[in-house]
Amino acid sequence: MASEIERKFLVPAVPSSVELGSGSRLRQGYLAIDGPVEVRVRRSGDASVLTVKTGSGLSRTELDRELTEAEADELWPSTEGRRVEKVRFRLPLPTGDILELDVYEGALDGLVTAEVEFADADAAAAFDAPDWCVRELTGDAAWSNALLAVQGRPS
Amino acid sequence: MASEIERKFLVPAVPSSVELGSGSRLRQGYLAIDGPVEVRVRRSGDASVLTVKTGSGLSRTELDRELTEAEADELWPSTEGRRVEKVRFRLPLPTGDILELDVYEGALDGLVTAEVEFADADAAAAFDAPDWCVRELTGDAAWSNALLAVQGRPS
Repeated sequence: MASEIERKFLVPAVPSSVELGSGSRLRQGYLAIDGPVEVRVRRSGDASVLTVKTGSGLSRTELDRELTEAEADELWPSTEGRRVEKVRFRLPLPTGDILELDVYEGALDGLVTAEVEFADADAAAAFDAPDWCVRELTGDAAWSNALLAVQGRPS
Repeated sequence: MASEIERKFLVPAVPSSVELGSGSRLRQGYLAIDGPVEVRVRRSGDASVLTVKTGSGLSRTELDRELTEAEADELWPSTEGRRVEKVRFRLPLPTGDILELDVYEGALDGLVTAEVEFADADAAAAFDAPDWCVRELTGDAAWSNALLAVQGRPS
């Protein structure tokens, strides 16, 4: 079980100098959102994963289990009305960190966010984000994928 | 992924003629209860399982994944205030069915329920319960383990 320490940013525009490379299309559907606990199915190509997230804020705990396609197909209808679609690009930064750039589609079309995961809280605090990561969203539940899926983009 | 077709009964008293044998002590804690979706951790001895249940009524779908003890330990605090403890006895019936008798402990001390799982809806409908299975609880959400864990025994 992994402990996640990450920071998240709003990206109003990706500079054309940023090389995106090829992304992977992800669909996430939420089976349950219950206080600090989220249970989701993430599908990418023919790979699907069940994830339980607990805790809140900068540091969360995450449990992952692979699903067969048949299992994912059977669970998927229970996520109706609580889904996000996005293309994820992985950008290596000069700092050595990996920035995950999520370009949303469907109902969230136009939204772009960036996430960086860190080994510990010190590394997270020391991180100097690219200047196109304009607004920090870390710990703001309204910008979590779970609430974006349910409520849409915050106004 | 298993489809569950089962019937459930309230057992005010277990006749002394019923041989219980040895039961297994189960602790169930609910990570999330969100409409028809329940996500729980069940612990028995040193074996722990994560279960996602979807759907409602007579027939539900259930996904199980084993957890390591470390994973179960890490998830368990997120079930606080939403737990049941019981001893489960498996009784073979003359019909060939297996009756699972759950004798609750802790806050639900005194409650005893019986569940029988069937291969299909016809077998479920044809089942003739022992006369000490006094009141049918099938499909009554208030008697589900999830709501028993949260709300206690219905009055």
